[in-house]
Amino acid sequence: MKEKNNFEMNEFSPFGGIKGGYINPIKSEWLALTTRPTIKTEDLSKLVNQVFKEVKELGDVALKNYTQQFDSVDIDEFKVTEEEFQLAEKLVSNELKQAMQLAVNNIEKFHSIQKQEKQVVETTSGVFCWQESRPIEKVGLYIPGGTAPLFSTVLMLGIPAKIAGCKEIVLCTPPNKAGKIANEILVAAKLVGATAVYKVGGIQAIAALTFGTETIPQVYKIFGPGNQFVTAAKQEAFQRGVAIDMPAGPSELLVVADESSNAAFVASDLLSQAEHGIDSQVICIANKEELLDKIVNELEQQLAVLPRKAIAQQALENSKMIVINNISDTLDFVNAYAPEHLILAVKNEDEYVSKISNAGSVFIGNYTPESAGDYASGTNHTLPTNGFSKAFSGVNLDAFVKKITFQKISKEGIMNIGKSIELMAEAEQLQAHKNAVSIRIRD
Amino acid sequence: MKEKNNFEMNEFSPFGGIKGGYINPIKSEWLALTTRPTIKTEDLSKLVNQVFKEVKELGDVALKNYTQQFDSVDIDEFKVTEEEFQLAEKLVSNELKQAMQLAVNNIEKFHSIQKQEKQVVETTSGVFCWQESRPIEKVGLYIPGGTAPLFSTVLMLGIPAKIAGCKEIVLCTPPNKAGKIANEILVAAKLVGATAVYKVGGIQAIAALTFGTETIPQVYKIFGPGNQFVTAAKQEAFQRGVAIDMPAGPSELLVVADESSNAAFVASDLLSQAEHGIDSQVICIANKEELLDKIVNELEQQLAVLPRKAIAQQALENSKMIVINNISDTLDFVNAYAPEHLILAVKNEDEYVSKISNAGSVFIGNYTPESAGDYASGTNHTLPTNGFSKAFSGVNLDAFVKKITFQKISKEGIMNIGKSIELMAEAEQLQAHKNAVSIRIRD
Repeated sequence: MKEKNNFEMNEFSPFGGIKGGYINPIKSEWLALTTRPTIKTEDLSKLVNQVFKEVKELGDVALKNYTQQFDSVDIDEFKVTEEEFQLAEKLVSNELKQAMQLAVNNIEKFHSIQKQEKQVVETTSGVFCWQESRPIEKVGLYIPGGTAPLFSTVLMLGIPAKIAGCKEIVLCTPPNKAGKIANEILVAAKLVGATAVYKVGGIQAIAALTFGTETIPQVYKIFGPGNQFVTAAKQEAFQRGVAIDMPAGPSELLVVADESSNAAFVASDLLSQAEHGIDSQVICIANKEELLDKIVNELEQQLAVLPRKAIAQQALENSKMIVINNISDTLDFVNAYAPEHLILAVKNEDEYVSKISNAGSVFIGNYTPESAGDYASGTNHTLPTNGFSKAFSGVNLDAFVKKITFQKISKEGIMNIGKSIELMAEAEQLQAHKNAVSIRIRD
Repeated sequence: MKEKNNFEMNEFSPFGGIKGGYINPIKSEWLALTTRPTIKTEDLSKLVNQVFKEVKELGDVALKNYTQQFDSVDIDEFKVTEEEFQLAEKLVSNELKQAMQLAVNNIEKFHSIQKQEKQVVETTSGVFCWQESRPIEKVGLYIPGGTAPLFSTVLMLGIPAKIAGCKEIVLCTPPNKAGKIANEILVAAKLVGATAVYKVGGIQAIAALTFGTETIPQVYKIFGPGNQFVTAAKQEAFQRGVAIDMPAGPSELLVVADESSNAAFVASDLLSQAEHGIDSQVICIANKEELLDKIVNELEQQLAVLPRKAIAQQALENSKMIVINNISDTLDFVNAYAPEHLILAVKNEDEYVSKISNAGSVFIGNYTPESAGDYASGTNHTLPTNGFSKAFSGVNLDAFVKKITFQKISKEGIMNIGKSIELMAEAEQLQAHKNAVSIRIRD
């Protein structure tokens, strides 16, 4: 097959105005193709340390100062009041509330089936072992501020927390310049049963959840997306022994399309990812050049009329349009890239599904847009980016519980395994470990 | 009840020679009682950064230099050869091998039942969602060196990795001054099917697993205990996007004993924990003063004849002997402390078990010593210390897999949830998200 492009000359645009086109790239080029664009992040450790130190020492006073400094607003009461919740309830349309309720129902159904029954196994006669899930008692959910209220993330984090049985589910989100939180976020917080919502964002919010202040409780695990400040603060929280959901990176989508796909649908999916931010990345793998040409053509048409066109266009500059004309290489590429979102718009989907090793969430067929999982199908939208799906799961019910192991051994049981324990403890030169068994066997 | 001691005067020794005795401590004292002894750790970030930088740039050459510097041995071949495995196989007694095999069987049984079947849920008519577990393809297991060969940790990490289906299971462990690895570790590595064992330890081993070198493959997740250098290096690996099992801290045990317990057994369990290291911590809660006196008496007798007496004695200085004479407060204390290991040597165990919120692994009854779980009952011994069981599970099968979500939506399905998605996407000002649904609904 002729190469319209090769890696060394990737500024050439084989597919209309979209940069980054590749036809059957050879495997030695894959590392470069699967590497995410470098995001320039400042070294924030000095700032993060300073904010953490002050919040630890000064509590709410530090939160007030930093909220004034970073969010340009004076907040006297961080905790959202019942009146504010009631007002929000009135100001959000019934139509939107019903839409949220459908999402809530589906998210609840999907996360509820993830509950696991206790299963006792007798590993040796008289030796009984089992696991039990227990909720993480206190969790903190971070919801970013910004121009649009990302209330869907409230649902995605709050619903599994509630199903898990977390006792304290506190939500932090930055106030706008008027000192308010978006009504939709407050309505969603009520829907999921959040125990409190606080008007605080950024590094100072994560520090408050890490140490606790007069107003904000300390939590055991912090969830949620955020900008580079929040990301750096979550890393600091982890260093200090607070669990976090997963490391963060820009959002991304990989679409695999063959002749069974609909080029317009694929283009709409690529754009739904590209509009997230200028650092988003989309990759499209088609099995035929003609198909990719059609998709790119659709992409350009749909892009032209998008409100967030400027953002999407920049994101597309990081993106790759690739022709790979065999399934095996396509799967290898997908697994090497380890996408956060993966759409399989292909006819023989079963051949793909069983061989996907690394992905956050997978969308199968022509009628399963990423948007469905972002909002309402029931699956979670908090997913591992940046190749982290090689080692991390997306947020699910497990993320809100710990599994504690239990064991109960009878007299007979310790007789059955005691000798082995004694031998192994002795070989590890741990005599007291051996004694704890010997003393029982002698009994 | 009279107070033999109170928190302000905890240098007084109510129970024989053991410091730190408390009788019904009031709740305001619990924070101090449940706080772990401060471990002085050096700031290792400069050293860690230096080693990571060199290993990244120079690969094996850096490993050789650092192994010479830190382990005082020249290693030419990091990879353990087939001959070395065969020799180890000959040198380990059949008796010990059989003991290991019993442990392997039990660990396999317990971790195998943790496999989860795929369960498809139709959240809305035409909307099908499910999770599938996939192994983390490449995992690195770190096994500390030192005086005793901790081969049991090889079993605890290697067996679930194998059951999960991890493709590359590589093991790093520091060589002794003769350039050798303990025979028991090599035999255990073969038993669990490790794909390679490398003679490298410390920060340089974690750096090698993070970046890969000419000899050692890069992995996606690093497991295993280690000293403060290894712990700091694992944190650095996490900052660079490699997953780790959990944060580390010194090992610890809390025993709850009532009149049904056997004082000699309890003392033997406390010592089996105390002998681990001078920074280990043991806590014993008894419901009666007389019982605690008996336990302490046993403790002193058994301690006197222990080979690792000096270590255990120092560990006991960090330890606490507490009388709490009601179950509800006892449970509150246990959950506030969140022990790595918890022994319940009590008669009405069911009353306790259901109310344990925070613990790593729980041992129930008089014939279930911690040693059993350390070696051979089947449960895992890699557990959250330092109160981390409030948010972290111990190592289990889940630790070696990711759960990928899948969804497939029919034409009917997208009609059923499409309107909700459109409304929510619009409210979040994400028009392209809405479009991806609208274009399909119009179809």
